[in-house]
Order: sequence, then C-alpha cells, then structure tokens
Amino acid sequence: MLGSTHGTLTMTPRSARVLACGGRTGGAVHSSAYGTSDVALDVSGRPLHAPVPDLDRFFHPEAVAVVGASDAESRPNAGITRQLLAWAQRVGARLHPVHPERREVFGLPCVPTVAALPEPVDVAVLLVADPLPVVEQLAGTKTRFAVVFASGFAETGEEGAAAQVRLAEAAARSGVRLLGPNTNLNAFEHFRDDLEGPAIALITQSGHQGRPLFALQELGIRLSHWAPTGNEADLETADFLSYFATLPEVGAVAAYVEGLKDGRGFLLAADRAARCGVPVVAVKVGRTEAGARTAASHTGKLTGADATVDAAMRQFGVIRVAGLDELQDTTALLARARPPRAEGVAVYAISGGTGAHFADLATAEGLRLPALSAAKQAELHQWIPADLSVANPVDSGGHPVGDWRGRKIIDALLADPDVGVLVCPITGPFPPMSDKLARDLVAAAEETDKLVCVVWGSPVGTEDAYRHTLLGSSRVATFRTFGNCVRAIRAYLDHHRFTRAYRSPFDEAPRTASPSLRKAEALLRPGHQLSEHAGKQLLRAYGIRVPREQLCTSAAGAVRAAAQVGYPVVMKASAPQLAHKSEYGLVRLGLTSASQVRDTYRELTEIARAEEIELDGVLVCQLVAPGVEMAVGITQDELFGPTVTVGLGGVLIEVLRDVAVRVPPFGEDQARAMLGELRGAALLEGVRGRPPADVDALVEVILRVQRMALELGRAGPGSGHGSGTGSGGGGLAELDINPLVVLERGQGAVALDALAVCR
Amino acid sequence: MLGSTHGTLTMTPRSARVLACGGRTGGAVHSSAYGTSDVALDVSGRPLHAPVPDLDRFFHPEAVAVVGASDAESRPNAGITRQLLAWAQRVGARLHPVHPERREVFGLPCVPTVAALPEPVDVAVLLVADPLPVVEQLAGTKTRFAVVFASGFAETGEEGAAAQVRLAEAAARSGVRLLGPNTNLNAFEHFRDDLEGPAIALITQSGHQGRPLFALQELGIRLSHWAPTGNEADLETADFLSYFATLPEVGAVAAYVEGLKDGRGFLLAADRAARCGVPVVAVKVGRTEAGARTAASHTGKLTGADATVDAAMRQFGVIRVAGLDELQDTTALLARARPPRAEGVAVYAISGGTGAHFADLATAEGLRLPALSAAKQAELHQWIPADLSVANPVDSGGHPVGDWRGRKIIDALLADPDVGVLVCPITGPFPPMSDKLARDLVAAAEETDKLVCVVWGSPVGTEDAYRHTLLGSSRVATFRTFGNCVRAIRAYLDHHRFTRAYRSPFDEAPRTASPSLRKAEALLRPGHQLSEHAGKQLLRAYGIRVPREQLCTSAAGAVRAAAQVGYPVVMKASAPQLAHKSEYGLVRLGLTSASQVRDTYRELTEIARAEEIELDGVLVCQLVAPGVEMAVGITQDELFGPTVTVGLGGVLIEVLRDVAVRVPPFGEDQARAMLGELRGAALLEGVRGRPPADVDALVEVILRVQRMALELGRAGPGSGHGSGTGSGGGGLAELDINPLVVLERGQGAVALDALAVCR
Repeated sequence: MLGSTHGTLTMTPRSARVLACGGRTGGAVHSSAYGTSDVALDVSGRPLHAPVPDLDRFFHPEAVAVVGASDAESRPNAGITRQLLAWAQRVGARLHPVHPERREVFGLPCVPTVAALPEPVDVAVLLVADPLPVVEQLAGTKTRFAVVFASGFAETGEEGAAAQVRLAEAAARSGVRLLGPNTNLNAFEHFRDDLEGPAIALITQSGHQGRPLFALQELGIRLSHWAPTGNEADLETADFLSYFATLPEVGAVAAYVEGLKDGRGFLLAADRAARCGVPVVAVKVGRTEAGARTAASHTGKLTGADATVDAAMRQFGVIRVAGLDELQDTTALLARARPPRAEGVAVYAISGGTGAHFADLATAEGLRLPALSAAKQAELHQWIPADLSVANPVDSGGHPVGDWRGRKIIDALLADPDVGVLVCPITGPFPPMSDKLARDLVAAAEETDKLVCVVWGSPVGTEDAYRHTLLGSSRVATFRTFGNCVRAIRAYLDHHRFTRAYRSPFDEAPRTASPSLRKAEALLRPGHQLSEHAGKQLLRAYGIRVPREQLCTSAAGAVRAAAQVGYPVVMKASAPQLAHKSEYGLVRLGLTSASQVRDTYRELTEIARAEEIELDGVLVCQLVAPGVEMAVGITQDELFGPTVTVGLGGVLIEVLRDVAVRVPPFGEDQARAMLGELRGAALLEGVRGRPPADVDALVEVILRVQRMALELGRAGPGSGHGSGTGSGGGGLAELDINPLVVLERGQGAVALDALAVCR
Repeated sequence: MLGSTHGTLTMTPRSARVLACGGRTGGAVHSSAYGTSDVALDVSGRPLHAPVPDLDRFFHPEAVAVVGASDAESRPNAGITRQLLAWAQRVGARLHPVHPERREVFGLPCVPTVAALPEPVDVAVLLVADPLPVVEQLAGTKTRFAVVFASGFAETGEEGAAAQVRLAEAAARSGVRLLGPNTNLNAFEHFRDDLEGPAIALITQSGHQGRPLFALQELGIRLSHWAPTGNEADLETADFLSYFATLPEVGAVAAYVEGLKDGRGFLLAADRAARCGVPVVAVKVGRTEAGARTAASHTGKLTGADATVDAAMRQFGVIRVAGLDELQDTTALLARARPPRAEGVAVYAISGGTGAHFADLATAEGLRLPALSAAKQAELHQWIPADLSVANPVDSGGHPVGDWRGRKIIDALLADPDVGVLVCPITGPFPPMSDKLARDLVAAAEETDKLVCVVWGSPVGTEDAYRHTLLGSSRVATFRTFGNCVRAIRAYLDHHRFTRAYRSPFDEAPRTASPSLRKAEALLRPGHQLSEHAGKQLLRAYGIRVPREQLCTSAAGAVRAAAQVGYPVVMKASAPQLAHKSEYGLVRLGLTSASQVRDTYRELTEIARAEEIELDGVLVCQLVAPGVEMAVGITQDELFGPTVTVGLGGVLIEVLRDVAVRVPPFGEDQARAMLGELRGAALLEGVRGRPPADVDALVEVILRVQRMALELGRAGPGSGHGSGTGSGGGGLAELDINPLVVLERGQGAVALDALAVCR
C-alpha cells in the first residue's frame, strides 16, 4: 500500500470556511441570509439558493435494508449483498436483508417486505428490477434514503423517463430521498482510513468513470466520499456538491458530469462551494454533438450548449478539465495545497532542456515565471556552476543535486518572496541524482508552506523514488506529465484568485420587477417576432439608447419626420418578421433632403410590394455617428434558460462566431470579462488611431439586456426546479441587438437594429 | 523486464519505402534525381535537396578513441570512459584511450595524442575542456566523427558562438563530421536487442529530455538510435532525420527540438521522411517568447516564429505534439501500427459513461465514429443485453466481457469494414472483467491487421493486466489517458492520409527566374519603402491585378486621368513611406465629376503640406466593385526566410490576427488549405445572400506572391546553408497587399493597396 498518513500539503483556513458556510451544513447560510420559512426567488421566479440536504445519515447509516438480498452464488445480487455486508461489518452498521421467500441471508434474519423491517433504516438498497412498489411501501417506515439500482428509466427514452417521474413522485410521497435509478454501491466502497488531511469528495454519474479517482487512494491521496448519482430522479449532482462544500474534511470536490437535471440548481451548488472556498473540478461530457447525444442516452439528462456550460462553470469558479487524468491531478492538488503566498512559479531542473521545455508550456498556460533577483542568482551560483542559467528556470546542471548543495538550492528558491510555487520536472530517473533530489524535495516541502510540485516523467513508474519517496509525501504534489502539472498549477492559482474576489451574484440578483417591465409587456406580441420599431421601443423601455426615429405611413409623413429627426436621415422598411432588410435594398443611408426622402419612401414601398412584404410603415431614423459595431442578445439554453451574449456586430458575428456568453445572474465584472474573451476585443480599444470606444456604455447595455433576460426571458426551459412561473405564452424568447454602435468614450452606445422574438 | 519480442503492430510496406527512398541511404535519391555532381537550387538560391550523411559508422563504429580518458575514480571522465568501455565490449568495438600522461586506462594501452592512435578510428570522443586543438590534430588521422562534450559555446552568447564557428571550421578542415559541442554519449547507450519490429529513432537536443523515450524500451517498445545533437556546430537534427528516414528498421522518428540551425535544411529532411513515408513526431520548444528565449540560451539556436514553425511542420507532415508524454505515445503508435484499412473508429467499453466520454473527446479531436449498421448491431446484441446501446460507442454493460462472449464482441467489431481502429478504454481495473478483456484484446489483435488501442486508465499502473498482458503485446497500442489516445489516433490517420497524397513541393519549385523578375528589379529601391503606385507596379509585374490608375502631379492632369480611368474614381495621396493614408484623410472615394476631381486634388495636396508629407503625386484610380477584402503578404522569418501570409483584409487582420502562413515552396493545395484555416473563411463562401467570392483568383494571387517571395525575398536570413546568394541590398523584405478585393466568382481579385519594403 502506497501513500502516507502524516501531514498534508495544506492548511486551508478551515475554520474561516466553516463560518462562511454556516457550519456543518449550509442550511445556516440559508437561515441567516434569507430567513428560514420561504425560499427567496429572483425576478425570473427562480430560487436564489438551494437547500443543503442533510446527507450525513446517507454516508454514515446506522441501519441498512437490502431489498432483494441474496446469498445464492449464481445471483448477481449475492455479490452486492456480500459487499454491503462486509461494509456494514467494517463500519458497524446493522444490515437487514429483505426478500419475500428467504428467512435468512448470509446468516442474517431476513424479512419478507420493507414493512416488516425491525427498525427504521437510514438507507434501503433496492436491488429489485421494479423498484416502484418497494418505494411506495417505504411510506410510513421512516426510511431516509433509497438507493435504486434498476436501469431502464430515462436513459432508454420517453417511456422510461415517464417511469422515472413516477418513481420520483412515489419517493416524495413516501418521504424518502432517492439515489438513482441506474446507480450502484460506490458510496459504500472500502475507503482507506489511514490517510489524513483534506480529502477529495467524488461525484460521478457513471460509476466506472469514478474508478481512477477512487484508485488515487493507492497513491496516498485521501478520498472521503463517493456519490454515484446515476439518473438523478431525485438526489442530483447539485445536492451532493452543496453538501460536500460544507464538510470540513473535504478539500476539493471532483465531479464527472454527463448531463444536469437543472442548470440553476447546479449553479446554486457551485455558488455555495465558491462561498465556502471549496474548489470544484469537473469533467463535463458534451463538448461535441456526438458526445452530448451519447451522454444523454446514458443517463437521460440535458447537456446544454457546450459554450454556455463552459461559461457558467467559469462564472462560478468550477474548474472544467478535459479528461479523467486531469481530474485526478487537479483535484488532488487543489484539495491538499495551501493558498499561495505568491503567484510566481520557479522551475528548477537538472537539465537546461527540461527547464526550457517546462517554462515554454508553463508560460503558454499563463503561468508567470519571475526572473530571480541578482542577489538570489548570486546565492544560487554559490552552488551551481557560473555558466549555467539560474534566472528561472534554474538549471543545476545535475551534479549539485547529488550532494549537500541540492537542499541548499531548493531552500533558497523556496525562500524567495516572489516564488509561490516550486516545480521540479524530473524527466528521467538517474538514481544518484534523482533519488537524492526527490528526498530533498520531500524534506524541504515539510518545512515550507509553499507549494512544491514534481513531475516524474519516466513512463515506467515503478521506480522507488516515485513510488515511495514522492508518493509517500502528502506535501509534494507529484505529476506524471508536464501538461497536467502546468494546468493544475494554473487551476490552483486561478481558484484562489477567484475565491478571494468572489461575491455571489445571487446576493445581488434583482428580486422584484423594474418599472420597465410594465412598459415592455405592453409591447410583446406572444408567438411573434416584433417589428424593428417595436423591438427598439422594447430596448428604450429598458433604458437602452436607440436612434431618434419615427414610423411613417406616407411620403409626406416621412418628410415631416425627417425634419423632426434631423437631416441626414436613414430610411428603413419596417415589418414584423423582416430580417436581413439590407439584402432587399430596404435600407437607405444618408438622405439629405425632403425630395430624397420622398423618392426613397416610394422606392421602399415599391420594393416591398414587389417582394410581397407587408410593411407596417417606413422608419425615418437619425443617422448615428460611426463607432464599433457590436451585437448583444438573449438566447435560450435548454439547461440554463435565458443567457446573454455579446460579439462583434454586423455580419462578422455569423462569420467568426466570436461570441461571449454568460448565464444570469452576473455582475458588472463578468460583463466586462465577456469583452475580454472576444478575439476582436482590440477593436474597442481603438485601432489605427481611432479613439477608444465607450466600453462602459457597452457594459451597461449588457447589464440592461441581462435585466431583460431575467424579467422577460423567464418561463423557458431551465427556469427553475421544473415548475417555472408560467409556461407557454409571455416573455421574450430571443433578442438580437445588431448592430449596437459603440461610440467613442463618453458618447454612449446606440442600438441601430433589434430583432425580438416573443414566446 | 517488460515487453515482448514477438510480432509487431505493423508491416509497413517496407520494401516500397526503401525503393522510394533510394535504398540504404538517401544519397541515391540525390544521384538519380539531380545528378551527382552539383546541388540543385531553386530560384531563391536555396538547395532543393539535402545530402544524406552516411552515419552507419557513427552509430556502429568499429574503433573508438576516447580523448581525455581516465580511470581515476574522482574524475567525471572516469564514469564516461567506463560507460564507453562497457559499450565497446558489448558491441565488439575497439577502444583507444588518449591521455597525455597516462600509459594505461582501465587496463587498455593509452596513447598521448590522437596523432599516435594505432589505427584510424570511426569515432573520437572528446572529453577535454578545450576541444579545438584536438579537432585540429584529427587532420590526417582519417577519423570520421568527433563527439564533443565541452560546453561554453553558442549557448553562452556571442563569444561562445564565435568559438563554435572556429570549432566547426576546424572540423571541416580536418575532414571529420562533428557532433556537439555540448552533447553526450546517448548514442552509445545500452539499447535492448531483444525487441523486434519497427523501432523508434530518437533525436534530442537535450539528452535529459530524451530519457522518457529511451525508457519506453522498459515498456516493450523498440528503440534503434538516439542522436543527442547538442549545439549542432556541424551535424544537426536534419542530418539525423534524413539518415533515419532511409533505414528499414526505423518505424518512426521522435524529435525533441529546441531550435534549428537552418529552416530549409530541416524542411528538406522532413521532405525526405515524407517521401519515405516515415512518420516524424516532434516537440518543438518556443511556443512562447519566454520559451524561445530559454531554449536559445540552452543550445544557442534560432526558434523561428512559432506559428511559422507550426505551419512549416504541417506542410511537410511533421506531427507536432506538446509534451514528452505525447511524444512517446504518438511515436510508439506510429512506428508500429500498419496503415489503416478504414478511418472509422469503434469505441468499445464496459460502461456507457466511459464510451460517452471517450466518444466526446474523440469527436472533438476530429475522429469519426461511424454508426454501426443495423446488422452489426443485431450481431452484437446476440451477446450484449438489448437495453444497452451498441451503435458506437458499444456498451457491453460489463458482464459479457467476463465470459466467452467477450472475444466474440471484439472480433465482430474488428470485422466491420467501416472500422479501421478499435479503441477499448478501461478506466478502472476489475480483474474478473478487465483482465479477461485485456487478454481477449491482445489475442484478437494478433489475428487482425487493424489497429487495436487500449486506454488503461488506472493511475496506479502496477496491475498485471497492464504490466504483463497489455505491455507484453506489441500489437496492442496501450495508452494511459484518453487524451493521448485520441491525439495519437488522429496523428496516425492524418499521417497516412498525408503520406498517400504527398507530392514533394521541392520537385515543382521554380529553379529559374520568371520574366517578371527583370521588370520587378527595376522598381526596387534598396532600403526604401515603395510608394503605393510603385508597389502596385511590382504586383502588376507578377500578373496580379491592380485598378487602372495614374499618378498625377497637377489638378489638370488628375482631371485628364479621371477621364481615361473612367468615372467614378478614387483619389489617394501617394508618397513613399506613407502608411495609413485614410487616417490623414488622404483617400477619397466615388468622385464623379471633373470639378470634384479638381477640388479633391487641391485638398489632398493641402493636407499633405500641412502634415509635412512630401507627395510624389496623387493617384487617380478606378473604383473597384465591392467584394471580400483580404490581405496577402510576405514576411521574413528568422528561421525559414520569406513566408507567405493570407488573412482577412482591412483593419481586421490586425485586430483578429486571423492569418494563415506558409513557407515556400508550396503548391496550390497548400494555398487552398490556408484559406480553410482562417476563422473568417465563411466570408469567401458568401454570407447573408452575398455571392461566393472568386477563391480561385485568390489562390492564384497567393501563388504569385509566393513566386515574388522566392524571386525577390531571397538573401534574407534563413536563405540557405548560411551563405545565401547575396547579402544586404536587393530584394523585397516585406510585402503587404491590403486590401485585396476578391470579387464574385469568375470576376477575379484586385489589389487596392500595396506596401512593399525593399531590402
């Protein structure tokens, strides 16, 4: 058995966290912040926090019933029963087999039904093919939790999904919380109890995918819980995440997610983890259409648009990784490492090539390798030959690591105030050097609160220095690849930066409708796309600037309007359902006289007649000064409901797909961060001598559009725990302001066109 | 000791390769294709092929001298001498110690100088601090190769670089090829000789960075050569690559490259490997500025602009990977796997979650997972429960793998004609299932010529099924992470697709100047930036269309010109060194009358006077129809010389950096592929009802610009083997055609502006 029981990489300020999270369960946050009786809702009708289920008795049951228990060796249930029995003996729980025909199972007395159980149990494990009747029978037994193994539910299609709803409803009626269906016994595996320090808590929708994380215990990394959520008819990823975030022994949560039952619920759980400072690292399947489809057919849940999932996770500090190996490495580091004292990374290698390569990958990942001071370099050159570079990366050339100088170098690097992380990539084992180096690193790590990382690059992995020295230390974070090491360090620094600055957007989300809502509702036409003019009035209702304009139904009216709007004017045909006007020649710019306006009016109406477009009139609009053309909008996500997007405007948004997205609620910081994500962001700073654009005004528009999304985008999918505040009619399905002209700094932003689709 | 000696994953059509590569060494290609006496050059004066050095005697020397040999235990040289002695005994080579003061070293007779050697040696290993005198003394000894350990050369700066040049010159005078300085004895390690099948040949600039690749032998993967190139004063990466590509035992070349001595030399070597069908997989340091700097200070070589390195490698089929772990996994796969019979990938897992996750990553990497036919699915459902999905990914649910059905499923998948690759990700060991699965996969792989891949996802790696069953097979490619597996499969399919279609651009590169060159040379003004008008004349000389235009020096002349050019016209101030004209208001569009032209002439000259810009006149130009604005240009790369770029035109090229680059020579296929790399490529296809653009004309412009780069871009850095065809004056340093208006299909492309900088 590998690994150690002494010490840990970290002392996360645990007491501070527990206070912030309201103690043992997060329920205290709930009560203190919002009162205990009713659930606070935002203006979209969605909850502002999620209750934390008390899962103590689920993970530490005193009495367990096994329904469908067997000791007949030919039955698969026999193996499961045996596993539970061994587990119960180990933890001292009482096990009650339930089977209609047996009197005894593995020597334990067996009752025919759950109604005949000798005591209320904490957990009933249902190994039967049809769990519904058993769940119904649990009513009145005071059973707290039911674990349902049976498959054939939502993962098989509509019929199975309906059966799953019936199962969930029966559980609710019976007063039990249900895990599964389509789950297993991973929660009751044999966890090593000889490992100390902060642990990883694991949530997986697929049991098999959690295996490598569970196996980390064999490398000396502590695991405290494993929740295999399966189809999530009742208990879901978010419930376990909320619960784990409040446990003092949990250093980080690792999650393998195929789909989510409810986007809002997941975000509220992630918000709780963020408030508690507990890092959450997740693999989320669904990067591709194919992956999303396959995942849906596995657990029958929604995957959401991948870019939206990505953004939502980042908003709430969830670290998304690509594969299970990264999930292991990143979670293990984050669970155990203390908060950084500095963000600088020092790279120390026994070969200049190793240092150069690591530095390249680290810099590409955004890590900062500060040049060491002249004094520090002089100090290092006491022990390292003068012709080797010690600026950072530090190249020892090899020999000094083999003698007394080795430890001096490490300590000198760790003592540098700019250095928060020391990384030592060891690409090949050469015992006279690498074994000594590993021992020195482990010893030095015991005496520092800074993070010490090692990459053991040998593909063999049976070497003593790796298996015993490095994995035997809980203070050194050991990786096998440069890539996973730099990504984990990046996640570590990002997490702590995020946590320090975190303010929950749910605390600031609007709860009551703005005065704009009534004005806006009068403009909506359920089931229709609004005309450009009506769309702009909608924007104006929310304080978003639009050009002065009038809708005219005669040439004479147009001429009068132009005089009021002020020359030069723009004229546009206006009709509901009319997109891509300019392709029909239905937009004319820069008209400077009454006669031009009169002629243009006639031309536009003639084109419309020829194209069989029924106009509601012609818009005569103020000509707006040129600026940076952007696009801001609302789209609906199946998982998260209405989301807010921003991108380059005009045709570029379609061509480049250079779009940033956020899930409400979010604050001004996130609105600003959206702009930073755009490849075309430099346009806003002013290129080729153009003045910088009014970014503040653009941010303000994004936030006003968010308000529209919250107040009008409600009632779509993902709008809450399945119920929403209304369904079918009402509200805004989509909004596309394009172009939004962002004028030069101080001059604001003007929406030149708006496409609004009502639900 | 792990690994096996039986069979191999592959039978690359070795005999065909040897023929294509001209037999044992590539020299035959040289002689047959271009004659033996002189080296063929392209129009830029750079060689069209590189000689293949005969390195047989370097890797298999019969006699070796060790200069500076020692058996005094306190000296580092004693260890090296001992290593060489052990090596010489193993391979039966004669070893001759050289030391001025010793009579005997480790019992062998020692001579005082190389001049006193008892026989000409193949390799002289120089362990002395100052190798220059020894290299000079090698003249007349008939020594073939010198290996120089000493450091303190180009990696230390200018002075060291000069010493390195002296060393290389001395080697040339002495008639020896030199490896190093700053190298080591990796070429003479103890290679396992019990492994069979195609081998990996390894080239590293840093010895330590090659260690993990060398250790692959402990996992049963054969390594045939290791060339530690160090500072490359003489022998360089390209030499070893050329040589390895011609060896029948080499299945793939793995390279760790920090910098290159000469871009062209590397491309010629890569071209040889591509002609031979030998895959080359490389880590190239220098993704970031910091990495490039560090690498340069390690071996003192040029890194080139990273995007250019990336493009150049792709042009010649070199597979660039990020880290050493990918280098191992990808090279091992490519060395041993047979060419694919189909490109479809089948994913087979014992858990639906595993299949979903793998499918997601595989699809994101561009792999195709064909849906299995109804008949194949019915066949699989004979053994797999009906409620599990077998469409691909195939989920066996676990149990069937534990009995006779397991092998049936694997064979059925391998028999599918759409399936070229079978991947079985095993995330967690569960011996009753996973051990049997591993055995079945190994056995099935013996009986198929299709590729079988396994991911052993356990982080522990000491399991029998992994260590013995899987690594014991040379027919199963075993990975540890999903990510490395999907990337290696992608590289494998890409490599074979590339090789099948490969036509060497060097065979078609122009060797003699076009008639355009003389016209162009008359327009160049050494050391100056050309005026817009002259720049356009340069383009016209190369057959690139420009608007009708006249350079006018009076208002009356402008009016006459406008009449000839045809109204409406565009007017632009023209001066050398004048960029960003429109910001000064020096460009006027759509002038429709003589009076407008006259007024505009006056305005432009007045602005120029106020801004103190000395005009050479005012251009009166034809107004060109609107189209897609692109930019095509020539830039200089320190490593590869002139390169050709294309991107979106106007201000977007600066804002979005959406640019594709190619290193000449390249063919039409690559010019077309450049457009596919642009994020904005959809603009050319026509968006929002606009007609598709004349892509053929754009491709033609790119190829004509390439011709300019070859004929006029010469004499810069990277122009050949250090000499070039002239230096300082002459030629074109930079060209920027922006915008190039690409009209609708069939209408061509017109360069509206050109900025040309002469050398």
